[in-house]
Amino acid sequence: MAEQARVLFTPSGRQGDVDLGTDLLSAARSLGVDLDSICGGRGICGRCQVQLGSSKAVARDDSKLSSPNLTESNYQGARPLKEGNRLGCQTQVHGDVVIAVPSDSQVHRQVVRKRPEVPDIDINPVVSLHYVEVDSGELGEASSDQRRLLDGLAEQWGLDSLKLDASVLADLQLSLAEGKGAVTVAVHDETDITAVWPGFHDRILGVAFDVGSTTIAGHLLDLESGDVLATHGEMNPQIRFGEDVMSRVSYAMMNDEGGSELTAAVRQALDSAIGALAHEAGANREDILEVVLVGNPIMHHLFLGLDPVPLGAAPFELATDQAVRIEASDLGLATHPLGRAYVLPCIAGHVGADAAAAMLSEAPHRSEAIQLLVDVGTNAEIVLGNSQKILSASSPTGPAFEGAQISSGQRAAPGAIERVRVDPATLEPRIKIIGGEHWSDEDKFFTEIERTPVTGICGSGIIEVIAELHLAGVIDEAGVIRGDIESDRIVADERTFAYVLWADPEILITQADVRAVQLAKAALYAGARLLMDHYGTATVDQIRLAGAFGNHIDPKYAMILGMIPDCELDSVSGAGNAAGSGAIMALLSKDARSEVEALVEQVEKIETATEPRFQEHFVAALGIPHETADYPNLSKVVELPERLGAGTARRRRGRRG
Amino acid sequence: MAEQARVLFTPSGRQGDVDLGTDLLSAARSLGVDLDSICGGRGICGRCQVQLGSSKAVARDDSKLSSPNLTESNYQGARPLKEGNRLGCQTQVHGDVVIAVPSDSQVHRQVVRKRPEVPDIDINPVVSLHYVEVDSGELGEASSDQRRLLDGLAEQWGLDSLKLDASVLADLQLSLAEGKGAVTVAVHDETDITAVWPGFHDRILGVAFDVGSTTIAGHLLDLESGDVLATHGEMNPQIRFGEDVMSRVSYAMMNDEGGSELTAAVRQALDSAIGALAHEAGANREDILEVVLVGNPIMHHLFLGLDPVPLGAAPFELATDQAVRIEASDLGLATHPLGRAYVLPCIAGHVGADAAAAMLSEAPHRSEAIQLLVDVGTNAEIVLGNSQKILSASSPTGPAFEGAQISSGQRAAPGAIERVRVDPATLEPRIKIIGGEHWSDEDKFFTEIERTPVTGICGSGIIEVIAELHLAGVIDEAGVIRGDIESDRIVADERTFAYVLWADPEILITQADVRAVQLAKAALYAGARLLMDHYGTATVDQIRLAGAFGNHIDPKYAMILGMIPDCELDSVSGAGNAAGSGAIMALLSKDARSEVEALVEQVEKIETATEPRFQEHFVAALGIPHETADYPNLSKVVELPERLGAGTARRRRGRRG
Repeated sequence: MAEQARVLFTPSGRQGDVDLGTDLLSAARSLGVDLDSICGGRGICGRCQVQLGSSKAVARDDSKLSSPNLTESNYQGARPLKEGNRLGCQTQVHGDVVIAVPSDSQVHRQVVRKRPEVPDIDINPVVSLHYVEVDSGELGEASSDQRRLLDGLAEQWGLDSLKLDASVLADLQLSLAEGKGAVTVAVHDETDITAVWPGFHDRILGVAFDVGSTTIAGHLLDLESGDVLATHGEMNPQIRFGEDVMSRVSYAMMNDEGGSELTAAVRQALDSAIGALAHEAGANREDILEVVLVGNPIMHHLFLGLDPVPLGAAPFELATDQAVRIEASDLGLATHPLGRAYVLPCIAGHVGADAAAAMLSEAPHRSEAIQLLVDVGTNAEIVLGNSQKILSASSPTGPAFEGAQISSGQRAAPGAIERVRVDPATLEPRIKIIGGEHWSDEDKFFTEIERTPVTGICGSGIIEVIAELHLAGVIDEAGVIRGDIESDRIVADERTFAYVLWADPEILITQADVRAVQLAKAALYAGARLLMDHYGTATVDQIRLAGAFGNHIDPKYAMILGMIPDCELDSVSGAGNAAGSGAIMALLSKDARSEVEALVEQVEKIETATEPRFQEHFVAALGIPHETADYPNLSKVVELPERLGAGTARRRRGRRG
Repeated sequence: MAEQARVLFTPSGRQGDVDLGTDLLSAARSLGVDLDSICGGRGICGRCQVQLGSSKAVARDDSKLSSPNLTESNYQGARPLKEGNRLGCQTQVHGDVVIAVPSDSQVHRQVVRKRPEVPDIDINPVVSLHYVEVDSGELGEASSDQRRLLDGLAEQWGLDSLKLDASVLADLQLSLAEGKGAVTVAVHDETDITAVWPGFHDRILGVAFDVGSTTIAGHLLDLESGDVLATHGEMNPQIRFGEDVMSRVSYAMMNDEGGSELTAAVRQALDSAIGALAHEAGANREDILEVVLVGNPIMHHLFLGLDPVPLGAAPFELATDQAVRIEASDLGLATHPLGRAYVLPCIAGHVGADAAAAMLSEAPHRSEAIQLLVDVGTNAEIVLGNSQKILSASSPTGPAFEGAQISSGQRAAPGAIERVRVDPATLEPRIKIIGGEHWSDEDKFFTEIERTPVTGICGSGIIEVIAELHLAGVIDEAGVIRGDIESDRIVADERTFAYVLWADPEILITQADVRAVQLAKAALYAGARLLMDHYGTATVDQIRLAGAFGNHIDPKYAMILGMIPDCELDSVSGAGNAAGSGAIMALLSKDARSEVEALVEQVEKIETATEPRFQEHFVAALGIPHETADYPNLSKVVELPERLGAGTARRRRGRRG
């Protein structure tokens, strides 16, 4: 037996005896240490960089490793050899050593996420790269390019029983010739060879899409490093067929080829987004091997070319509630010719793949605390639970929160009023618009609106103004705008009253507006309460508001209005782009895919339409909260108005704006 | 326990006790009897028709079966209920009975083949149909179209863990709506749902193609019955790029986009052949779910879009030597959108998928007798063996047998001389042309050639004329045309002599022609002998000549010329369209696919180019056989000429023609 030495790898702590002269990559593999390599130990890829370390027992001693050989000295690979690092595959053990594996030399390195409560992502994509040097065919030896490649992968990588997609054969011929027998292959799902490049290739990219009704957001990532190379957002061109999703379903229903038009529009936008992402990153579309898509059920059906009409009427039947794996080209996306697409599963007819992605990212199933995760759109997608149990439902909020059905409402866009404060004494408002940085009581505001004039009020603005008017005593607990208050700001509007928020252009908050918001927020609240009932809890520990609107809304006002249940205000927050983050996780990690698929299966789906209690909660929630008992946490920070008696007239000063 | 009765099924002989009232389809299934059903026992498909039979123990007694119920009485399904037949799924057992299952009610019914030595084909295609009635979605029940379908297939057919191709989802939505929850699905490989039709659908079709260098032959089959619905042959349009395969490889090599042009040409021809087949059968392209293709290695590579150039030079490396499974649409074939194509494996660089198919059909591996299977083209593909061992090789015969490199040679086409007899006394020839029915010594011949004039001589003609001239003593054992014979038929041709076969147009058999045929036939013979050496046998028991040329050639003349080894003449025959038959087998039976794939792996591939013995055999085979010892069997029926001495002048009469 050859003389041996002890090698200890950190941070894994794995150690063992290896023959003197063993290279560190081989040592790591034999000891089950996670050390990366694409080139299979040929000193090409630079993935197996390690450092000489030390421990209490073993001092750092350069002589215990071989000196750099020619391959290492001349190394000029894609990943530069860092100062003090050695190429594991070229460095031999000459005595007892401690070897440190830096995190970026690990196959399963992690993407560290900023929020402590969500787990880091282990990078473990469905596609991996393998460099292989293939024996040249010899006359008289029955063989084929395919067989030689498969033999090489089995010998050099231990990858047995791989399948070669027939469409790769032509590339294989060319790559073997151009690479003189050396090629890099991409392997999907550890079973399918889906791409071949001549020689050494170490770039595989992926795109994660969150397909919203309004905005399509895409991220281009390096699947090896997990780095985001580019980000791109654009309007969903389907908007020309209808602002909200239900109007698009109507368009599909009323027009023979309506569904196909909508599908073509969104696919074209996705494809052009891929082009923009690749351009921004200076990358090649052909290097994109994976695309992940999420979206609400209607978007999901439309980009998959499925009929969305069944989602518009009971029983709100999805075509599929499972993850969809399809070739990217089948979705009209130009990536690598064999690029694949993965679509996260929808949870139910109104709870989409975006909610599934948000759930994956926010990870209520990993937390002890009970989390309420809400994505507000035309339907609110609601998820509630913790590691014990997860439930989901959707509530028919309608488009009020998106600014529709509001007299001066509009989509969140530059010029829309998004923030409102009302002086309780004078009833004078201060506003802030999207695209501006100043409040209307600052002089610079008026410079701003010369550039970006006030055009209307968006969802977060309408919520704030109603909540502020409630706190100011203008709107009572029943949602009535009180006509008995003497103020220039309160004007008669047919047989009800309206609040004059802005003069030019005139932006009124009408009684009908308040009613529309009441209906919407009561639906949302009732959905959340229904899930709490099913879970068996009277309180929630955390509330996460997902989606663009969720990030925009001030949690305090949402609570004042009674949109969401009581909760410590510190524990209510926007979930950032939770759906997008979930899509990225599914792009970087096949484990994340398994996780979300299992999770969606386990979620208890509650159908609000068939639950009598939903109606009860809904009716009870139509008013605006005033009882401290219902909102103990909110009451700590906001003084909720008393039940307002009639006839309390107050006089106010004139108005401005 | 319920009262039981004994049911015996013939011809399987399976029997068992079932509860009274059990229907015959259920009884058959519980006893493992092969009884077909597409509709799952709903009295729709008419596949489970059975007859009341009798045995020694059990007399035929109508009262032991239930009377026809309404479903049976009103049955109007696709497959008519034959006189005396009962619908198995509707007929209940009322007492001990013998039930006969007709062969066309069996799932694995057989296609009986005409030749006794080859096995019948069990119909067992990779795709099967299943009618299923899917629960309608109910509000409040979390589900999806996909889930309801999969649940239905699991419950009604016991098909678990099926995968649904994402491209089927849109069809599934439409079909469920149109079929009011009843659909028929096609399942590929027992795992993948690849098609959905509304309601009951019982037609699935497949196409088997033999892609020859000259001719593309296609057959449209009903995959349920195994019936050939249509047959279509057309010229391979690649011919415009070169008559023989090597000239097409040259075209691909010399022209940048040459390979793509050749690929596009053959794919277009295949697609139009599918159109013609569907039209002839009154069938719908969309009902075609499977296409099987075979061809020589060059054709194989070209229709798959692979570069054929590596096949033109050592080491003659195939891109793949395994069976190829690909979507039909990837080959540019318009079938069902998810129709699939299966390409049989090539055996080696010069021994193609056509040889593999011929081997499957001729089944040497199932026979005790040693079979030599030869397909003559520009390369002869040769297979030799029996149940003990199979070997293959190719011989570079060149295109002489296809009429090329022959002074008056031409492809086998109307007007080509295909049969020749030479009177040994007068040296006067008789000829017969393709497209004609009479010999040239019959008066009607001259009427024929007014319509179809003589244009040249094809492969079988050149073989016959040289063999006949050899028997007549005009060509000696070295292949020399003897100038010392006095005859108007023998003329000087530069420094050699030629035989005047025809006057108008003048068709000479020149010394160069004889040399070209000698080279070709010696290569073929040497290949066969090399395999015999490797096998370790001095004789073969059967010779099968495959391909168009093989069917055309007279085995006796092939043997006289020494193309093939000695064999009893009765045991030498054309193999019909063996490659096409093999393709049909692979279309109808997945077992046939497994069989041919295993077989190709087992074949011992002999490379003639690296075998010194091949050269020895080749040189030894250049002459024309004359030794009775070498051809004992041939000598029984033909008197081989003695070794011809020089200077034996004979005078002949004048010529005619």
